[in-house]
Amino acid sequence: MPSISIKGNKMPESPIRKLVPFAESAKKNGTKVFHLNIGQPDIKTPSIALEAVKNNAVEILSYSRSEGSETYRKKLTTYYKKHHIEIDHNDIIVTTGASEALIFLFSSIMDPEDEVIVAEPFYANYIAFSTATGVNVVPAVCKIEDNFALPSIETFEKLITKKTKAILLCNPGNPTGYLYSKDEIKKLASIAKKHDLFLIADEVYREFVYDGEKHYSIMQLDNLDEHTIIIDSVSKRYSMCGARVGCLISRNKTVMQTVLKFAQARLSPPTYAQIASEAALDTPQSYFDEVIKEYRERRDILVAELQKIKGVKVAVPKGAFYCVVELPVENTDDFAQWLLESFSDNNETVMVAPASGFYSTEELGKKQIRIAYVLNQRDLVRSVKILKIALEKYKN
Amino acid sequence: MPSISIKGNKMPESPIRKLVPFAESAKKNGTKVFHLNIGQPDIKTPSIALEAVKNNAVEILSYSRSEGSETYRKKLTTYYKKHHIEIDHNDIIVTTGASEALIFLFSSIMDPEDEVIVAEPFYANYIAFSTATGVNVVPAVCKIEDNFALPSIETFEKLITKKTKAILLCNPGNPTGYLYSKDEIKKLASIAKKHDLFLIADEVYREFVYDGEKHYSIMQLDNLDEHTIIIDSVSKRYSMCGARVGCLISRNKTVMQTVLKFAQARLSPPTYAQIASEAALDTPQSYFDEVIKEYRERRDILVAELQKIKGVKVAVPKGAFYCVVELPVENTDDFAQWLLESFSDNNETVMVAPASGFYSTEELGKKQIRIAYVLNQRDLVRSVKILKIALEKYKN
Repeated sequence: MPSISIKGNKMPESPIRKLVPFAESAKKNGTKVFHLNIGQPDIKTPSIALEAVKNNAVEILSYSRSEGSETYRKKLTTYYKKHHIEIDHNDIIVTTGASEALIFLFSSIMDPEDEVIVAEPFYANYIAFSTATGVNVVPAVCKIEDNFALPSIETFEKLITKKTKAILLCNPGNPTGYLYSKDEIKKLASIAKKHDLFLIADEVYREFVYDGEKHYSIMQLDNLDEHTIIIDSVSKRYSMCGARVGCLISRNKTVMQTVLKFAQARLSPPTYAQIASEAALDTPQSYFDEVIKEYRERRDILVAELQKIKGVKVAVPKGAFYCVVELPVENTDDFAQWLLESFSDNNETVMVAPASGFYSTEELGKKQIRIAYVLNQRDLVRSVKILKIALEKYKN
Repeated sequence: MPSISIKGNKMPESPIRKLVPFAESAKKNGTKVFHLNIGQPDIKTPSIALEAVKNNAVEILSYSRSEGSETYRKKLTTYYKKHHIEIDHNDIIVTTGASEALIFLFSSIMDPEDEVIVAEPFYANYIAFSTATGVNVVPAVCKIEDNFALPSIETFEKLITKKTKAILLCNPGNPTGYLYSKDEIKKLASIAKKHDLFLIADEVYREFVYDGEKHYSIMQLDNLDEHTIIIDSVSKRYSMCGARVGCLISRNKTVMQTVLKFAQARLSPPTYAQIASEAALDTPQSYFDEVIKEYRERRDILVAELQKIKGVKVAVPKGAFYCVVELPVENTDDFAQWLLESFSDNNETVMVAPASGFYSTEELGKKQIRIAYVLNQRDLVRSVKILKIALEKYKN
């Protein structure tokens, strides 16, 4: 039979989804599985978005513009303005999720073998997108001991080679929940400027910031218009992961013209989802207030419960709804599989994401897992209890 | 400023969309533009699909499975069975349009510099997808004099190199409207088998076949399960281009496992659109009977009107809703732009797709255009009349 490509063979399996068959087996055997592994919130989508789709007047479900519907992009600019990001609607290209935005961007600014420096641990699919586009991820290691703060400028500069084209960070971070300070962003800006690199921020969790902290966007930086690119998505903001609507924002015209060519080749982003996304922009602030309060409470409970377990280290997240946890085990890939395959407490178990998939540095993250606090508080408490019992049993 | 990638610079502009700014200017100046340039049908989407979305019960718009909703894939198998394609639902991965299916497939089976032989002229975005994935399109030239029938086996075999991984055709063809016969498909099958190549068919126009002819799918072939891959889409079938739902079908497990890794990285295809697509499977046959009758009548009128113009050559399409037309001009890129920029008859003009973008062989197709007969019959007759008047004026 004809052979698969080297690239196809190299594509990593999703660390979040690779345990799915074990979870399915567990469920078939009557075990309840609490899903701490995936960022699929249990929060309801704003009714204003759902209703807009129910009341749509589409008769011919036609292509939208390749760069996304004009009314949607225009309305998006007012959303960004509220977040101190001043842009024109032509600085936005609507994409099929943040995933597509990253693929288009990587292809537009990097050739195979070019390098992008990424704060590590990072969103696992960055590796998949870099494999798909042939570019190399160069990790800037952040440590759980520092709560995953950025390393020094010197550390970054040591990583820069002739092939470096960009620095990418997720702010607030998946999987760390780390919120980068204005100072840290300015540090990166100075590196980007000095070495003529693009500065890319995946800001899909912009709203989810706790403890009165403020999110500082790379697009609030002065004098860096040609360098900064935001990746965004409605998935988490409005709990509408299934919409598949994201966008790419830049004031750099050449970047936008190039990304548009990739966008045109795939014709258009999904039409129904753009109707939902445009309507979602009128979501009242009260929705976010409630959701953020809920996530904060969950985070507090999760962290408190985890800290009660001996040998467990937690990096307290300041944003998003993830948390990296170090466990007293040698290999969390094995442990996570064991949780589904060989363990249950009262016919219940938990599914977690082993953190190795969020690192490209060998050996790092092997003792860590990512927990997504997307379950209600009772389930979250029960999940940590299960984890505690499991850890005790696993030791023996 | 940081530089764009070589790949980004190489990405072709869409030949269908590159004239859009000129069309927009014309419209601003009060000229009515008849769009013969794009495959966006004016046919209504089946109400059963539209209603399903209006009546959806979604409360949390969550991710579907990366390979697409299971109920949708299961129901799809009965659709394919009706078309003599016997597959299991695990042989299907739902994608965000046929575009994504092709990108995933090219990445899964080909590495940069590998080659795919494509019957030329071909769907213009094949070039964009090959540029995006770094593979090379090798054209197997088909001629307007032969109505765009496939060249001989010998011609194909001459094109095969060590880097050849696949043969790709669109059946019925965009832009040619050519319907490949069972004999032609078997010819390709023998080459694929002999040289161990994948055989890929883009069958998104399967239903649109005229004059009592029958579509013969590559998946009706015996003993070629490891080689054949279908690319499909709901866009044209149900006039729902804006859904962005397609699929990739293969009985080759290794191909499917590899494609799934790309699908997992982008999380899932759009949820609302899958609701529409699943419901659309219950579209009554009467819908297709009417639509096909309408397209056939349009084709007949279009071809008859075009044949009245001196110096115009038409390849009579047997399927899809496109037609390649040779005009008595030197360069249809210039002519198409002139139509929008400098010509109007009674304040009306037409927008056509210059055919050069459907060829990778230099110099070929320069006198040709693609016409999509997606307008009603009156507009179509008027459009050809405008074209005739324009050609007379352009000569002088």
